[in-house]
Amino acid sequence: LALAPLSLARAGEGAAEAQAFAQRVAQESLAYELVTSLTTEVGPRLAGTPEEARARRWAVDKLKALGFSNVRQEPFELPVWRRGLEIAEITAPFPQPLAVTTLGGSVSTGPEGVEGEVLSVATVAALQGLPADAVAGRIVFVDEVMTRTQDGSGYGVAAAKRRTAAYAAHEKGALAVLIRSVGTHSHRLPHTGQMRRVTEPGDNPGVPAAALSAPDADQLARVLARAGSARVRLVLTPQQRPAGKSANVVAEIPGRLAPQEIVLVGAHLDSWDLGTGAVDDGAGVAIVTAAAKHLMDAMPRGPARTVRIVLFGAEEVGLVGAKAYAEAHREELANHVIAAESDFGAGRIWRFDTGVGEGARDAALALAQPMAVFGVVPGNDRARGGPDLKYLRESGVPVVTLLQNGLDYFDLHHTADDTLDKIDPDDLAQNVAVYAAFLYQVANGGELYR
Amino acid sequence: LALAPLSLARAGEGAAEAQAFAQRVAQESLAYELVTSLTTEVGPRLAGTPEEARARRWAVDKLKALGFSNVRQEPFELPVWRRGLEIAEITAPFPQPLAVTTLGGSVSTGPEGVEGEVLSVATVAALQGLPADAVAGRIVFVDEVMTRTQDGSGYGVAAAKRRTAAYAAHEKGALAVLIRSVGTHSHRLPHTGQMRRVTEPGDNPGVPAAALSAPDADQLARVLARAGSARVRLVLTPQQRPAGKSANVVAEIPGRLAPQEIVLVGAHLDSWDLGTGAVDDGAGVAIVTAAAKHLMDAMPRGPARTVRIVLFGAEEVGLVGAKAYAEAHREELANHVIAAESDFGAGRIWRFDTGVGEGARDAALALAQPMAVFGVVPGNDRARGGPDLKYLRESGVPVVTLLQNGLDYFDLHHTADDTLDKIDPDDLAQNVAVYAAFLYQVANGGELYR
Ligand SMILES: [Zn+2]
Ligand SMILES: [Zn+2]
Ligand SMILES: [Zn+2]
Ligand SMILES: [Zn+2]
Repeated sequence: LALAPLSLARAGEGAAEAQAFAQRVAQESLAYELVTSLTTEVGPRLAGTPEEARARRWAVDKLKALGFSNVRQEPFELPVWRRGLEIAEITAPFPQPLAVTTLGGSVSTGPEGVEGEVLSVATVAALQGLPADAVAGRIVFVDEVMTRTQDGSGYGVAAAKRRTAAYAAHEKGALAVLIRSVGTHSHRLPHTGQMRRVTEPGDNPGVPAAALSAPDADQLARVLARAGSARVRLVLTPQQRPAGKSANVVAEIPGRLAPQEIVLVGAHLDSWDLGTGAVDDGAGVAIVTAAAKHLMDAMPRGPARTVRIVLFGAEEVGLVGAKAYAEAHREELANHVIAAESDFGAGRIWRFDTGVGEGARDAALALAQPMAVFGVVPGNDRARGGPDLKYLRESGVPVVTLLQNGLDYFDLHHTADDTLDKIDPDDLAQNVAVYAAFLYQVANGGELYR
Repeated sequence: LALAPLSLARAGEGAAEAQAFAQRVAQESLAYELVTSLTTEVGPRLAGTPEEARARRWAVDKLKALGFSNVRQEPFELPVWRRGLEIAEITAPFPQPLAVTTLGGSVSTGPEGVEGEVLSVATVAALQGLPADAVAGRIVFVDEVMTRTQDGSGYGVAAAKRRTAAYAAHEKGALAVLIRSVGTHSHRLPHTGQMRRVTEPGDNPGVPAAALSAPDADQLARVLARAGSARVRLVLTPQQRPAGKSANVVAEIPGRLAPQEIVLVGAHLDSWDLGTGAVDDGAGVAIVTAAAKHLMDAMPRGPARTVRIVLFGAEEVGLVGAKAYAEAHREELANHVIAAESDFGAGRIWRFDTGVGEGARDAALALAQPMAVFGVVPGNDRARGGPDLKYLRESGVPVVTLLQNGLDYFDLHHTADDTLDKIDPDDLAQNVAVYAAFLYQVANGGELYR
């Protein structure tokens, strides 16, 4: 069934058509096929590596095969970090191995490793409050527990320790730092993730840094409670190369009436190296690609505005692709009508948040009307749109967040367990339908949301 | 409250006292304290290693401190196997790492590893049915799925592939064998476990053998389905030493009226090396020790019969401690009135199975009466009593199985995830209470169960 584009004058209309379209889309399985293909045929795809390049070739091939226009790579460079050995053990008083994973950006201990007394602190702030002679020569253990929430609000607090602990420990002369994983489950699968990026030569490089799985953090805490002290040995041998290649992959459905007006949907193509990046962010790649494909098929003459898919590179290591996109498209950002990124797993969308101009809030909220049938409720007006939209948002591009249920997301996030089996095909299809309802309205309406 | 021993003449009586005693015991937390101590202060304790020796010292110290009599180690020797490197990756057509763990008893690939085409078979029987030239030079993948059951009946079938696959693959000239883990969850934590033991020089040594986690087995199956073929590289460098030391740890509550009559409760002290052996079998050690301790405290003058705790060594690597016990106590086996082992995790006991003489079935079933209040139902008459009771049972010793709920047991069994956090203290306390009800009756009754 081909749909005619709405008149740009009828902004905010078309909710009924959007809903009918989305309900048809909800029956499709393209997204699950895409995420299956990406995670099986490419697998892990760390930023700047040959594996990420393979993911880009996969994406270009798929986007072309699906019939999108202007499929291209937009290259940029970045330093490349790779994991090495990661060995940790309690050496005294109760010798036993600990499951750890190196944090992205960590320096190496060298192959001989480091060994020292453990100093447990509740938070990075507590560490910063200690005198240097209480910390120097020790292995700091930041034993802060993350809160499980539906909206992901537990993550900001928890990720702060991952970003800053190694630098705070270095300032006090520590040997190394261990953090309790930024995660919400109790399996022996520690969570990696990027530390704050060090950009200037001479900056604090941090100490070697790793995350303990939750059961291992529990164990180390118990050993400390029982024995009063513990010694740990740690070997982490990551390597950093100064320059590697990455790129954003871009594809379009050219607009028929206002091709210069861009509706952007995004996700990130890179993943951490431990899992196959199914929920982070293969799911997002699949959701936005499938939603756009269904719109294209439903409107053979094209939507009114241009729909642009951006599959960002190098998100995990510090939004490098996001910055490259904002710079490369600086002149065009004023024409970005609205943007949304899918990067919070594969759970069902349950809330629609807006981040638009003050006068455009009602028009933006109206977009949620055809989503109600999929269980989506209107949300707040503080949407950030997704990590890769940071620079666009800061440049004034309106954003929305199609917020997914994240209760289980941090059971998997940045672990070896982020694999295809964790995705529910029905939940994924609901995401595609809601994105389709969004795209149908914003690509055919006349509202500017500023 | 001190209890008087029942008259031996009043066999099968005392159910009401047993229930009252067990209900008091159900309020105690000693078992959880014991399993916390063992898993924290000792951790992993592979058979024949210094870690297992540390577990024996822990056990002797605890059993003495709790006030048991005749606390001793009964030593034996065994070959000792230790894990080395374990690396697996798909090298073509979709290069990516795979999570594997070496099976106990596997030979080494050497540090250079092996690489070959994957041959997927549904079962070991299917492998055995293939001509050698279809298998030779390949890496065999036995992709058989285990069934989740409450009573553990899925395990026998699934474990057969672990025990036999390496030898069947060797007979056909394969390079190595990968099995889908003997397990029921979908985390990237593969399950180790012992292969059939090779005892005679010149026997088929098997090929190098490892288990893939379920998500990795899914992935390899998907790659094969999509591409038609796959190559895998495998590096496994376990080592085997001909002779090491182990022992069973034994402790007693001497009987007051018939000290020569022995009621045996057991568990195994060794564990696999990946986790801390909390559910397999720290829980069992804690359950039987706590139940016996509560009986001892309730009956300061002693029960009628001797209660003997046996914490077996080297169960995991092939019931080596069980055999040593049966040999060392051969002369005494006729005096073993009845035996039970706790070695199926920390789930609640839900069924009482008997393995007794034909004429003793009713008397044995009557033991379940005071367990009903804890949710235990009468079961079948084919109880095996627990793995370490194999040789006793074969020698005519009556056994019972206090069957635990094993629905989740094979989510954890023989993985790195077998850690303390997986034990529910209330479920553990229920186990202790049911064992206490059992012990109270059989240690004070006069029935012989033969
Ligand atoms: Zn992400
Ligand atoms: Zn991420
Ligand atoms: Zn066991
Ligand atoms: Zn076991």
